[in-house]
Amino acid sequence: MFSLAGIFPPVVTPFQKEELAPKRLADNLEKWNKYDLAGYLVLGSNGENVMLTDQESLQVVETAVKNTPKDKKIIVGAGRESTRNTLNFIREVSRIGGDAVLLVTPHYYKDDMKEASILKYYQEVAEDVSLPVILYNVPKFTGLEIPVRVIARLSQHPNIIGIKDSSGNLTYQQSILSLRLKDFQLLTGSANTLMAGLMMGAVGGILALANIAPRQCIQIYQHVLNKEFELARKLQLEVIRLNQLTTGIYGIGGLKYALDQAGFYGGLPRSPLRSPDETGQQEIDTELKKFGII
Amino acid sequence: MFSLAGIFPPVVTPFQKEELAPKRLADNLEKWNKYDLAGYLVLGSNGENVMLTDQESLQVVETAVKNTPKDKKIIVGAGRESTRNTLNFIREVSRIGGDAVLLVTPHYYKDDMKEASILKYYQEVAEDVSLPVILYNVPKFTGLEIPVRVIARLSQHPNIIGIKDSSGNLTYQQSILSLRLKDFQLLTGSANTLMAGLMMGAVGGILALANIAPRQCIQIYQHVLNKEFELARKLQLEVIRLNQLTTGIYGIGGLKYALDQAGFYGGLPRSPLRSPDETGQQEIDTELKKFGII
Amino acid sequence: MFSLAGIFPPVVTPFQKEELAPKRLADNLEKWNKYDLAGYLVLGSNGENVMLTDQESLQVVETAVKNTPKDKKIIVGAGRESTRNTLNFIREVSRIGGDAVLLVTPHYYKDDMKEASILKYYQEVAEDVSLPVILYNVPKFTGLEIPVRVIARLSQHPNIIGIKDSSGNLTYQQSILSLRLKDFQLLTGSANTLMAGLMMGAVGGILALANIAPRQCIQIYQHVLNKEFELARKLQLEVIRLNQLTTGIYGIGGLKYALDQAGFYGGLPRSPLRSPDETGQQEIDTELKKFGII
Amino acid sequence: MFSLAGIFPPVVTPFQKEELAPKRLADNLEKWNKYDLAGYLVLGSNGENVMLTDQESLQVVETAVKNTPKDKKIIVGAGRESTRNTLNFIREVSRIGGDAVLLVTPHYYKDDMKEASILKYYQEVAEDVSLPVILYNVPKFTGLEIPVRVIARLSQHPNIIGIKDSSGNLTYQQSILSLRLKDFQLLTGSANTLMAGLMMGAVGGILALANIAPRQCIQIYQHVLNKEFELARKLQLEVIRLNQLTTGIYGIGGLKYALDQAGFYGGLPRSPLRSPDETGQQEIDTELKKFGII
Repeated sequence: MFSLAGIFPPVVTPFQKEELAPKRLADNLEKWNKYDLAGYLVLGSNGENVMLTDQESLQVVETAVKNTPKDKKIIVGAGRESTRNTLNFIREVSRIGGDAVLLVTPHYYKDDMKEASILKYYQEVAEDVSLPVILYNVPKFTGLEIPVRVIARLSQHPNIIGIKDSSGNLTYQQSILSLRLKDFQLLTGSANTLMAGLMMGAVGGILALANIAPRQCIQIYQHVLNKEFELARKLQLEVIRLNQLTTGIYGIGGLKYALDQAGFYGGLPRSPLRSPDETGQQEIDTELKKFGII
Repeated sequence: MFSLAGIFPPVVTPFQKEELAPKRLADNLEKWNKYDLAGYLVLGSNGENVMLTDQESLQVVETAVKNTPKDKKIIVGAGRESTRNTLNFIREVSRIGGDAVLLVTPHYYKDDMKEASILKYYQEVAEDVSLPVILYNVPKFTGLEIPVRVIARLSQHPNIIGIKDSSGNLTYQQSILSLRLKDFQLLTGSANTLMAGLMMGAVGGILALANIAPRQCIQIYQHVLNKEFELARKLQLEVIRLNQLTTGIYGIGGLKYALDQAGFYGGLPRSPLRSPDETGQQEIDTELKKFGII
Repeated sequence: MFSLAGIFPPVVTPFQKEELAPKRLADNLEKWNKYDLAGYLVLGSNGENVMLTDQESLQVVETAVKNTPKDKKIIVGAGRESTRNTLNFIREVSRIGGDAVLLVTPHYYKDDMKEASILKYYQEVAEDVSLPVILYNVPKFTGLEIPVRVIARLSQHPNIIGIKDSSGNLTYQQSILSLRLKDFQLLTGSANTLMAGLMMGAVGGILALANIAPRQCIQIYQHVLNKEFELARKLQLEVIRLNQLTTGIYGIGGLKYALDQAGFYGGLPRSPLRSPDETGQQEIDTELKKFGII
Repeated sequence: MFSLAGIFPPVVTPFQKEELAPKRLADNLEKWNKYDLAGYLVLGSNGENVMLTDQESLQVVETAVKNTPKDKKIIVGAGRESTRNTLNFIREVSRIGGDAVLLVTPHYYKDDMKEASILKYYQEVAEDVSLPVILYNVPKFTGLEIPVRVIARLSQHPNIIGIKDSSGNLTYQQSILSLRLKDFQLLTGSANTLMAGLMMGAVGGILALANIAPRQCIQIYQHVLNKEFELARKLQLEVIRLNQLTTGIYGIGGLKYALDQAGFYGGLPRSPLRSPDETGQQEIDTELKKFGII
């Protein structure tokens, strides 16, 4: 079975003057490759996937495939609003060499995405692709939550291997875990719930924070594996603020700013997203210094 | 000035076995052309714009341009998450011959779309296009509301000519109208608020219901213009239920089903959207019969 | 039948140094009595009913009964979380001489207040009281909406004579009106939807704004009755901002401040509610001056 | 310092034919006293505090004081919408012999309860009482969240000793814990987050589930204290479903039904709250049997 254990950064997509900058992505990957990361998510929410053309998206996948060693996995964000567009895109991803796909719930027509439609979408896609499929629950972007009983049904499909939950809702994660679904893995989608998620049964995490602080994320993961809970807890509480600044509070602009400070290439997000103002930059600097990242 | 007065159906995009069916759209347009409609919105939310490729989207615009008489306007839904993709798409629309564009607020990164980002998006686009721009406020899909004071500032741009408000929130519409913004027109985005919106100062409406009941929508509009308020009110209250069934309750699947019953081509929405079940079909039939549409 | 036609201010409850000040209420009523108001709502949301003891609440009712001429009605806010407490309180109101009661939906246990529980509450109360009962739908305070089909059933009870809707959601109001319920009256609960509500079939309004601007509220009402729609519309759009400042933006503290400026007694709301700061006071002053109220 | 360590059931308030039944409460307490519970919360949300008169509330406190051994603490839910009513009620609680008070955020006027008002409420109360004060954050009932920085400031007051957080939001709890506030304790307010909360630094929990399954709640607590994490995790995942059925899904009616099955007195909640229907009863029975509770 395709293992999702470990830490995956959802890598940012670099731009230079609004143009996709694959060379910069390659440079970042070279640096991340030195850490004990399980692999990468490209074209996730933090990868500004909704800001790209399909052609650019495929360039990102190609760059990742070319610059990632074989022992690290490449998960590709590949969800689209229609089953048809999703399938077309996955076909290209598969051809280029992605290892698995992460599928956000179609969500533009929120009121229409009742249980039956969510089920239909994932089943139709899973039926028609060969790559392993990971569900993606992210209410803060979609305004929807994949119901636990839909997950239970979808978990029975051999191509559906797990879920990334970015709700931050531990009860939701525990509801899934309490079903002890066969061959179905849970990835926590926020550094805030990393330790607790792992304690309860998650196998790893796809964490924005792992872009800028891969070492710290891996340490929390290893501490939990080694049953060094006091060390894990200390570090977990320490990273909360940096994580909030570079996700919720200043968003992708904040994450990219922090990357620039941390020795990676961040650059600007695509317009209309914006960089943090000076106050925000100082708040982020303060946190980065605490960890010796700058 | 580009007038938005009158009734515009946000036309559905027909598919046959999931393939775009431009011929069917042409047939529908031919039928709608017989009514005293001000024009059409193509590629709006009801046009399943998020389910299409850019190429298909342009085919829809071409079909509309070819099959619409000169005295009717073609507004094109052209909003994308990034300024860049929006501008690229509008360039094509402009080349093909759309008359104006309607731009939904970028919304995937909801927490990042604060006032400054919303302002930035619309200003950058308006600055760079020649077609008239209409703002599109639709919280039920975006989870966002364009703040009234952002509208006030945007209204000063010569290329920004109005707003379509689909919130159904009359207070919001009145807040805009009370500012008496110069050269800025309000279109109501729901048949439910047609009469009230017009009474308060809206110049017209882009109404899903006008796909299946153009005559009734135009009648309400005319009654208000003619100060026949009791007639307007009677009809307004009568259409509420049909409108709810073919928008909120059964969504685009319901609207397309009703079109099939009403002598147009509806067909199925793209998966994972679904058609109403038998109960839903009967509820819609019942309402259509009340108006003699079937 | 008990008519709800006309304008009712939901009168504020005056305090002096946090003590109930019935004399001040009497003075205010004396001033309001000079206007062509249909009556008063006491102990509504604007009456800080949740800040009072039951004993104080009854003092307010007594003061209102004593200081209101016979041709004006006294509606009393009498909703409690339990059927039992509601009934006990209504008994006292009835004894003292209130004319009708307005019952907010129990809402603390939101998830438990499904259709069946809402129906049960109102039916049990209506069954056991002699005073006319008015439903009160106010999602901004309760987090709940009384479903339209529950209203349809409740409207059949002879003691249930209408609903005050403060949702500002015109579609909701129209859904109710479109059912043409027998002997069931709709009151709009916000000055923002006064003209539109009346146009669609509401019989009147319970309007916070009528505390400070009774004349203007009555004028809108009269203009609609007289079919002077252009005059109504002009005034309607003018009052929006003052209404927003003294309800949503600065709440009861804002309303009470405005009363003090307008020649009534406002005073401070009970702690922890607060008065507007200086900026807020100036904003309110500016609007009051527009109407010549100060 | 007043320690909040351990498990506290928020005890239900028994009624017989809608009348308060203190004798039944005494009987329940006698049974709960046999468990290693840290004490009780009376008049919490599960105690139907909003359904009681003040007089009944005080009877509940008296009954608890009389029937609880000295080594167990009695926390009393004492929050009211106004500072004044809160202070008056706490005075009575203090006289009767409660050990600490738990204060829900005033919430009826949600829009007015900005940071300054929340701060003002708790500061004014803490300033004027001698009993230890515990903040109570419960967004599902109040529609509000006490901001973390308000908590930081309130924690400096010597009378404010901690917070019960029932949001189920682990990130929120961790944000509080990461501040390492002096002399400030966190209680988790849901059995769903018991293990994770304790792992991260909570000192205990006030758990509806502890009404019907005190043994299991205490076991999770003890396992975490003993660093038996695998045992804790197993039990934590097992109790999720029972907890959901007797809180969110069937509410207090479900909790009281389960109490009746588990050998305590539950009875009916006050109207309009309702008991679970037969399906609900069976679902609850199934879970109770899993634990040998019935």
